[in-house]
Amino acid sequence: MKKILVLHGVNLDMLGERDPDHYGSETLAEIDARLRALGLELGAEVECFQTNSEGEMCERIHRAHRDRVDGVVINAGAWTHYSIAIRDAVEILVAPVVEVHMSNIHAREEFRGRSVLSGVVTGQICGFGSDSYLLGLRAVLKAAAPA
Amino acid sequence: MKKILVLHGVNLDMLGERDPDHYGSETLAEIDARLRALGLELGAEVECFQTNSEGEMCERIHRAHRDRVDGVVINAGAWTHYSIAIRDAVEILVAPVVEVHMSNIHAREEFRGRSVLSGVVTGQICGFGSDSYLLGLRAVLKAAAPA
Amino acid sequence: MKKILVLHGVNLDMLGERDPDHYGSETLAEIDARLRALGLELGAEVECFQTNSEGEMCERIHRAHRDRVDGVVINAGAWTHYSIAIRDAVEILVAPVVEVHMSNIHAREEFRGRSVLSGVVTGQICGFGSDSYLLGLRAVLKAAAPA
Amino acid sequence: MKKILVLHGVNLDMLGERDPDHYGSETLAEIDARLRALGLELGAEVECFQTNSEGEMCERIHRAHRDRVDGVVINAGAWTHYSIAIRDAVEILVAPVVEVHMSNIHAREEFRGRSVLSGVVTGQICGFGSDSYLLGLRAVLKAAAPA
Amino acid sequence: MKKILVLHGVNLDMLGERDPDHYGSETLAEIDARLRALGLELGAEVECFQTNSEGEMCERIHRAHRDRVDGVVINAGAWTHYSIAIRDAVEILVAPVVEVHMSNIHAREEFRGRSVLSGVVTGQICGFGSDSYLLGLRAVLKAAAPA
Amino acid sequence: MKKILVLHGVNLDMLGERDPDHYGSETLAEIDARLRALGLELGAEVECFQTNSEGEMCERIHRAHRDRVDGVVINAGAWTHYSIAIRDAVEILVAPVVEVHMSNIHAREEFRGRSVLSGVVTGQICGFGSDSYLLGLRAVLKAAAPA
Amino acid sequence: MKKILVLHGVNLDMLGERDPDHYGSETLAEIDARLRALGLELGAEVECFQTNSEGEMCERIHRAHRDRVDGVVINAGAWTHYSIAIRDAVEILVAPVVEVHMSNIHAREEFRGRSVLSGVVTGQICGFGSDSYLLGLRAVLKAAAPA
Amino acid sequence: MKKILVLHGVNLDMLGERDPDHYGSETLAEIDARLRALGLELGAEVECFQTNSEGEMCERIHRAHRDRVDGVVINAGAWTHYSIAIRDAVEILVAPVVEVHMSNIHAREEFRGRSVLSGVVTGQICGFGSDSYLLGLRAVLKAAAPA
Amino acid sequence: MKKILVLHGVNLDMLGERDPDHYGSETLAEIDARLRALGLELGAEVECFQTNSEGEMCERIHRAHRDRVDGVVINAGAWTHYSIAIRDAVEILVAPVVEVHMSNIHAREEFRGRSVLSGVVTGQICGFGSDSYLLGLRAVLKAAAPA
Amino acid sequence: MKKILVLHGVNLDMLGERDPDHYGSETLAEIDARLRALGLELGAEVECFQTNSEGEMCERIHRAHRDRVDGVVINAGAWTHYSIAIRDAVEILVAPVVEVHMSNIHAREEFRGRSVLSGVVTGQICGFGSDSYLLGLRAVLKAAAPA
Amino acid sequence: MKKILVLHGVNLDMLGERDPDHYGSETLAEIDARLRALGLELGAEVECFQTNSEGEMCERIHRAHRDRVDGVVINAGAWTHYSIAIRDAVEILVAPVVEVHMSNIHAREEFRGRSVLSGVVTGQICGFGSDSYLLGLRAVLKAAAPA
Amino acid sequence: MKKILVLHGVNLDMLGERDPDHYGSETLAEIDARLRALGLELGAEVECFQTNSEGEMCERIHRAHRDRVDGVVINAGAWTHYSIAIRDAVEILVAPVVEVHMSNIHAREEFRGRSVLSGVVTGQICGFGSDSYLLGLRAVLKAAAPA
Repeated sequence: MKKILVLHGVNLDMLGERDPDHYGSETLAEIDARLRALGLELGAEVECFQTNSEGEMCERIHRAHRDRVDGVVINAGAWTHYSIAIRDAVEILVAPVVEVHMSNIHAREEFRGRSVLSGVVTGQICGFGSDSYLLGLRAVLKAAAPA
Repeated sequence: MKKILVLHGVNLDMLGERDPDHYGSETLAEIDARLRALGLELGAEVECFQTNSEGEMCERIHRAHRDRVDGVVINAGAWTHYSIAIRDAVEILVAPVVEVHMSNIHAREEFRGRSVLSGVVTGQICGFGSDSYLLGLRAVLKAAAPA
Repeated sequence: MKKILVLHGVNLDMLGERDPDHYGSETLAEIDARLRALGLELGAEVECFQTNSEGEMCERIHRAHRDRVDGVVINAGAWTHYSIAIRDAVEILVAPVVEVHMSNIHAREEFRGRSVLSGVVTGQICGFGSDSYLLGLRAVLKAAAPA
Repeated sequence: MKKILVLHGVNLDMLGERDPDHYGSETLAEIDARLRALGLELGAEVECFQTNSEGEMCERIHRAHRDRVDGVVINAGAWTHYSIAIRDAVEILVAPVVEVHMSNIHAREEFRGRSVLSGVVTGQICGFGSDSYLLGLRAVLKAAAPA
Repeated sequence: MKKILVLHGVNLDMLGERDPDHYGSETLAEIDARLRALGLELGAEVECFQTNSEGEMCERIHRAHRDRVDGVVINAGAWTHYSIAIRDAVEILVAPVVEVHMSNIHAREEFRGRSVLSGVVTGQICGFGSDSYLLGLRAVLKAAAPA
Repeated sequence: MKKILVLHGVNLDMLGERDPDHYGSETLAEIDARLRALGLELGAEVECFQTNSEGEMCERIHRAHRDRVDGVVINAGAWTHYSIAIRDAVEILVAPVVEVHMSNIHAREEFRGRSVLSGVVTGQICGFGSDSYLLGLRAVLKAAAPA
Repeated sequence: MKKILVLHGVNLDMLGERDPDHYGSETLAEIDARLRALGLELGAEVECFQTNSEGEMCERIHRAHRDRVDGVVINAGAWTHYSIAIRDAVEILVAPVVEVHMSNIHAREEFRGRSVLSGVVTGQICGFGSDSYLLGLRAVLKAAAPA
Repeated sequence: MKKILVLHGVNLDMLGERDPDHYGSETLAEIDARLRALGLELGAEVECFQTNSEGEMCERIHRAHRDRVDGVVINAGAWTHYSIAIRDAVEILVAPVVEVHMSNIHAREEFRGRSVLSGVVTGQICGFGSDSYLLGLRAVLKAAAPA
Repeated sequence: MKKILVLHGVNLDMLGERDPDHYGSETLAEIDARLRALGLELGAEVECFQTNSEGEMCERIHRAHRDRVDGVVINAGAWTHYSIAIRDAVEILVAPVVEVHMSNIHAREEFRGRSVLSGVVTGQICGFGSDSYLLGLRAVLKAAAPA
Repeated sequence: MKKILVLHGVNLDMLGERDPDHYGSETLAEIDARLRALGLELGAEVECFQTNSEGEMCERIHRAHRDRVDGVVINAGAWTHYSIAIRDAVEILVAPVVEVHMSNIHAREEFRGRSVLSGVVTGQICGFGSDSYLLGLRAVLKAAAPA
Repeated sequence: MKKILVLHGVNLDMLGERDPDHYGSETLAEIDARLRALGLELGAEVECFQTNSEGEMCERIHRAHRDRVDGVVINAGAWTHYSIAIRDAVEILVAPVVEVHMSNIHAREEFRGRSVLSGVVTGQICGFGSDSYLLGLRAVLKAAAPA
Repeated sequence: MKKILVLHGVNLDMLGERDPDHYGSETLAEIDARLRALGLELGAEVECFQTNSEGEMCERIHRAHRDRVDGVVINAGAWTHYSIAIRDAVEILVAPVVEVHMSNIHAREEFRGRSVLSGVVTGQICGFGSDSYLLGLRAVLKAAAPA
């Protein structure tokens, strides 16, 4: 069974309490439950992790590297746009990494269209609300599959 | 049964003959077959269309508008980066539109990271080879579903 | 009697079906009828042409050059912002050319404020809905008149 | 009878004495006479005003706001390119405002292609010499008409 | 009695030990005491919080959202210039937020003139040393008052 | 008793007649009355001055320099963004100068976020409607006080 | 005998009718004849193709790829400056491609100095009128020769 | 005897009261006296004019045009950097115009290095304090001399 | 004996596990041992500190300020490129600070060539793998020495 | 017999010793021999000159001007990208000048795509190794020929 | 008697042979003679120096520094726009330095408006043909005079 | 014994005579002596070379390439910021090259922070006065050592 790590960045613990136009009304716990369920259906164990600390996020990625997870889905939240620290942590990973965003980051403020992560991930999915995560899970499992 | 239109832009008829590092070795016919099969599985009729003419692409989108298709998946190829004509055609549509790219456009030449379409689509998926299309089909069906 | 050519670019065949805030609810046929009527009133024969193909647009302009039309009114639609091909075709003409836009292109997205045509036309009229065409017809007839 | 205010900005009192390639040989008085005549023909009373003082221009626009004129035609001259004061004054108006220029500002020095007014007016007409004013008068009357 | 939260960002615990030309010689404890005293005078309970951890700052803001504080005064220090994480946290708040800076950030290095927070706050006060905080407290109380 | 000069720039005589979302519904006379009252309360004589002429504004500042006023509060309106003349006049003053804006200039059009004055003033306050002036008066009196 | 394809882009069918300062007075047929003659002299069969349709140009290049031509000389006209579609088509080719321009594109309007093709061709020749084509033919034959 | 007009722009009436590092301690009256004296020595009648009103400056230049002065020396002060109105007024003149600055505008804030006048004057002299004017007077007399 | 603090920023705990082309195969513990040994040789006590938390890094620098260390060597890792918080913390120090990088940051991605620290340090050393640290230790000891 | 001067700029004496991917393995002497041979074949006397001194290069061009050579072929090497001195020297020449580069300068580092010479030469040839010189010789002879 | 050094940079030995629109028809020898004559009249010994070698120019400036000349007039020609070497040499001088240009560098190609010298000289004079030198000589003598 | 070449660029022969804040008071001869002494201590023969001629610098590097020196330390002075000629010469070398600067080039004028050399050297050391050279010598010897 494949091991997939789903990472939620800064402020995402506020999902359900924040502007629902961009982020929907689901809570993070609900999204995590849907991810674990889809993981089971697709034969994967999904672990979810949220933090508001850039340092903890980097260290969680370091551990994923040491644990040799089969794939990572990451929504880095606001860090997407400036945290080269997380970019460098992601770059260490050899497993596929899928960057997801609930909103279409290319159709909002100009600075949100720039992702410092996108150059070091396998692919990017954005704009589908919490479905972005589920599509990301499918994508990373495909990318992690033997050819 | 939902009607989904998949649009392939300029040069994509060369899939399987072009640089396999970015585009894989599948032909467009093979991708279309996989899309139709997944469509059936998900309860949707998938029609595929490729053209190297910007004008024909716009007119195909106009027809989709008149036919009230339930959703559109579009890989505009090189037009992604400059064809405001196709952007304007896409903007006319009221059905959800998903922009897909086989390669991770954010990890190649700088000009490929800029999409003139992304501001008017529901979401964007890139970097997963032909799986980008299949994920796009799933995404557009979710977006087209009644709440 | 003067011969004036009115050119409608890409997506303008969708007038009346597209966002009425920017483009009004008239159809292109109705606008063309008003143009021909005003032409007659002002002593000019007005021919109208619409295409979604950049190549056909260029060739129609080439023919206008060979036919020595007395003036051209052009709404190049989205091509306004990037089609140097149409710019070069327009530059060949010796007759006056008036660039028109139904919406005020300077008050929308930033990229719409840039016209690659404006450097090679006699003048530009924008922001008056279908009246932009009628004003353009008046303007080109004045410009085409002997001093 | 509609009341239309025509505003001429800085240096336009020198018309007829300045570079005729860009500005023609007519004097401002002659243009104003043509505007009043066309106004009468179209059922409008046209008042013309010229000043070289940015402050007086703003105050004349303030008064137009209080007098509830039916429309304004403005050639702000060099102020077009930097006077945010006049932009803000124009923005106060609820009546339609048409920006006109005698020369094609998009085909001269690069700084002339940028108008700080264009974002707050109904539309823009440029490139037709003194006819730009007459077209502007027609345009503002159309825009001011009941639908 | 209104509840106001005052937030001090990174390095501000060094006040009194750092370059007095830009930051004065008061310590943070002294400023907090003055804020609480002014709060009492104006009928508000002022709570102060300092952290050097971006994550803790975000979480403190999250808690303020849940506690429904009546207003927030924030000096984000260096984070002002890049922490979109804090911007997003601030954007969640429905209470008024006043951004303060002790130095005039517009009169120092160019990068200090750019605030990623300023687009999502009620207003900004800078340049008055520790008085910036006191003015900010007055401002937030006015903004939080019933009309 | 301290002498404070409050300066209102171009178009601010239209307060109460202009877009109330950005500028509130108070008239300038009402604001001036509140400023004089607060001045009395704080032991200062407040004089107010409004002009739509850049030259008059500069000359009023020159006179303030000669009269050795104790402080200046200035809302330069649209001039904020381009009038280096007023910047240079302000720079002559040795008394503290506080720049105020009723709206949050950093949360509107991009060009409004740039102030050519901010580099030569003591501090800046924006976003609090007419309260910006009152906070500015408090700020300038603090800055003008003997240490 | 080597097979060389010479491609003429948009508006080049107007050669001889367009501004002779930049493009000379020869017609395209005359240039093609000179190219075929030089080809024979150098032991190559030269085929020439002109189109005003970007799509047809791409498809002609696709066919050249399938036909395994020995080299391509391309003057993409105005497309040079924006058609990433043609760039992508050219990039598919494994045979050498020489980009030619009749005018010195680096000594005209700034936008003409930028070629989106130049990054994917073997070399570029510009500024020698119709001789640019003949030099391009020599160059591509040299590049196509076995070492 | 040649007639030379010397123009002093905004804030220059404060010379002698303003920052002496950039502007010296002479008053404008003293500089004008030196200019008139040098004019007499060189056979020219020098008239000096100062205003803080952009409109008055433009109108003074218009009058110089009508009076056919033999040359103009202008220090436009802060207007140098943005007043296209004065640029346009200067451009009307057929007599030589020399732009002078007391400080070296290229060695101060970056915005001071940009002159909107410099493209339409005969030459520019800066950096020599009040001697810049005297050198400018010599220069304009040389330029105005018959060859 | 001099006291030197060596600071390692985010992700540097992964040395030896990360891309060896840029970072070598040594572990951080090995580098620290070499630094302490060289310190002894040069008469200095070297303390090393690594953290992935920006806040902890700032607070460690604050403590160094209070402890009056004789010099600091810092490799801020990815923070180099955006953490103005660490820049401000470094700026507080009065002891010399040497910025080191194992890779040549000027020969990698463009964003890595920009250091927000470099403006506030004594000097910068990059490109020599772990030797960058040893050279940095020598440099800071020289800079900390009495003249 | 026509006299053609071939100029080789800085570092080109290292040909054959430098990176053969961009510059081939021929020495400069071999290239010069091929140029002289082709010159004889085409009826021209070819003189070659190499220098690493910008000043000597300028002076050699000055002499060519005085000697009235019939044409110049120049590969300015690295100077291409910044030596306005050589640009100005080239601009003095009335004979045709052809700029050549062995590598395709448009497909390398971005700064190599910018040539300060290209605006003042007849044409540019790049990307064909030493054949660029031979094509350049043909081109300059054609350009130098009587019409 | 004061000692003044006049420096002529690259290509200026071609004066009289180069484009007379920008540079006049005088030779450098004639200009030097006029400079020496004016020097005598004003009580100064003028030495003139021209070189096409940047290194020689720097060394001549070094010598001027050692010789303690009283002032320098420099026309650096094309080096003006990029030779930071000459800028650094000039910066060493303690005597006043006047930068001169025969043409108005601000009214030509954009790159000519940028001088890397202007930040380190006393002042700049441009646009008066060879008279720029004579004015420069007067200016440097004034600047070199005891107060 | 290893052979190391130390290169000093333009104006560095003025060390000791130039601004001591950035460059110290040592002469170049003193620095060279310290370098040779340290070389002996570390088992290397150090040769030093200074020139103000870009061409001589390139040729000295060419010779180093032919002589197969073991390493190069270069302070290119002002050439650092624009001499692509020296960059290309350095790029030819296969031995390690260390770029040194006495001042911290990243903490001065913005143009000094840009080095055209840094992309082709092993590493860069700046900010330590003449110690930068000594550290550079240590660095290049480490880089030149067998692993």
